[in-house]
Amino acid sequence: MNLVLSLTNVNEAEWIDRLRALLPNRKIESWKNGVSDPEKVDYLFAWKPDPDVFAALPNLKVIFSLGAGVDHLTSLPQLPHLPLVRIVDADLTSRMTEWVVFQTLFHHRDHLMYAAQQEASVWKDHKQPAAKEVRVGVLGLGELGLSSAKALKSLGFDVAGWSRTPKNVLGVQSFFGDSHLDDFLKRTDILINLLPSTPATQKLVNAERLALLPQSGALGGPVYINAGRGATQDEAAIDAALTSGQLKGASLDVFEVEPLPQTSPLWKHKNCIITPHVAAPSDPQALSEYVARQIKRFEQGEPLENLVDLEVGY
Amino acid sequence: MNLVLSLTNVNEAEWIDRLRALLPNRKIESWKNGVSDPEKVDYLFAWKPDPDVFAALPNLKVIFSLGAGVDHLTSLPQLPHLPLVRIVDADLTSRMTEWVVFQTLFHHRDHLMYAAQQEASVWKDHKQPAAKEVRVGVLGLGELGLSSAKALKSLGFDVAGWSRTPKNVLGVQSFFGDSHLDDFLKRTDILINLLPSTPATQKLVNAERLALLPQSGALGGPVYINAGRGATQDEAAIDAALTSGQLKGASLDVFEVEPLPQTSPLWKHKNCIITPHVAAPSDPQALSEYVARQIKRFEQGEPLENLVDLEVGY
Repeated sequence: MNLVLSLTNVNEAEWIDRLRALLPNRKIESWKNGVSDPEKVDYLFAWKPDPDVFAALPNLKVIFSLGAGVDHLTSLPQLPHLPLVRIVDADLTSRMTEWVVFQTLFHHRDHLMYAAQQEASVWKDHKQPAAKEVRVGVLGLGELGLSSAKALKSLGFDVAGWSRTPKNVLGVQSFFGDSHLDDFLKRTDILINLLPSTPATQKLVNAERLALLPQSGALGGPVYINAGRGATQDEAAIDAALTSGQLKGASLDVFEVEPLPQTSPLWKHKNCIITPHVAAPSDPQALSEYVARQIKRFEQGEPLENLVDLEVGY
Repeated sequence: MNLVLSLTNVNEAEWIDRLRALLPNRKIESWKNGVSDPEKVDYLFAWKPDPDVFAALPNLKVIFSLGAGVDHLTSLPQLPHLPLVRIVDADLTSRMTEWVVFQTLFHHRDHLMYAAQQEASVWKDHKQPAAKEVRVGVLGLGELGLSSAKALKSLGFDVAGWSRTPKNVLGVQSFFGDSHLDDFLKRTDILINLLPSTPATQKLVNAERLALLPQSGALGGPVYINAGRGATQDEAAIDAALTSGQLKGASLDVFEVEPLPQTSPLWKHKNCIITPHVAAPSDPQALSEYVARQIKRFEQGEPLENLVDLEVGY
């Protein structure tokens, strides 16, 4: 019933303290500081873990991923075929929805133009399309995509979604499967990428697909927004589309390489809003409580929630 | 059954064309071009009208205001005591809600800080409060205030509203009347002003009231947002509060004098977002249909909708 943590790029000691407070009667240790009884470890809590951790824990029963994305685990050949639980947290969903709604309205309401006018003390109004005239398309209709789609729908946008399998969401047109992706892109003025990173989604948003977004929409050109995973986009293609004017604007929170290298040309596009992977920061206390709750469910014979399908990768 | 228009600062001829198409069997004329049968005019459609128009039309039955605000009429001593219909339009409400949600998220998500970081190609995250930790207060819970309050509530914000009379809105704390205004301000991190301009609301947002907004909130200082009427704010007080840092930020779409004079110091505050009264532009076709519909209702003996209470001024 012991728990081991292998978390990189975060303050692992603070996570151990929080989990010890919630699960007081078991041994909770850091992998990198040494595990006392490896064969007694039932649970691993991982974020970009040391790949050697799996072989060293012979009786692992469940793996928990810190974060909604699990590509940091599914990309490892050493990952054993065990139940893998990902984070689904109301706070994280809410923050992601805020960021997506904000960036959508930023482009829809032409903030950069009004900011430039303010800089020059210019008072001048411009024709503004109604939300219902703007076609938003959400790539990926999981927990996060659905929440964003519903929020944008309630603001009046014409919303569609694309997912691997059909989804039934009131007022949101459902496109699904590879064969309908092109049709989805051809009707989308603001493309919102919330796809997970899986073998099937690597660089899915590439030059060819960006070129399918219509130039004729109500905003006078398409906008691309990504708060999912950087690996699902081709940044050279995004840079080229911003340079040529094919893309009217973009908002990016995730990148192929993070931190975004100083040399990336994306930093310099005024109409490309860059945030440093902060769209949906996790609330450590809420996530710790989530992991503790799942462990208790498992030990009481209840089903684990939000299990990852290892075949499809999310 | 004839209709006269007295509209300033808009293309009156286009309004006449639209209304003639919708109401083909009656005389529709412009006041400034001369009215052929003044005693046969039942309806006036007005925006900042010539004050002499009222005395010249002895048999007026209904006055229609172009725009949700009616202070351009109620401020005129010549205004007769007749039914006064203001515009309530789903499209206008939707656009206003967009603008308010956008500006609220702009400050909540600290866009200016991330924009400054992008300028310097800096990748650095910052602690971000959850929406539920941020107390939004909507001044004025009419059609527009209610819509904004509900949209912000659904994004997770802690929303209260202040109005002349109590309102019962699910999940939105109701403050009402002069005696509860101070308590409302003392719990508000983001103040959203959607008040109508009436004798009671002139410069209501002044230095004394801005000073009641808490410095200790989750955003590290209060934010002031106004898309209602400029006359309800004291801009010298707003400028002083931005200069001293008492206000962390502001977003203003309306001003005491419009266009905002070139000499206004508000233009120069980087943390004061200025838009040129574009939060909720009206859709002329939708508004023309609304006026035609109201005239038909009136002539069929049905009650007029959205009548202004001339005692309170909205």
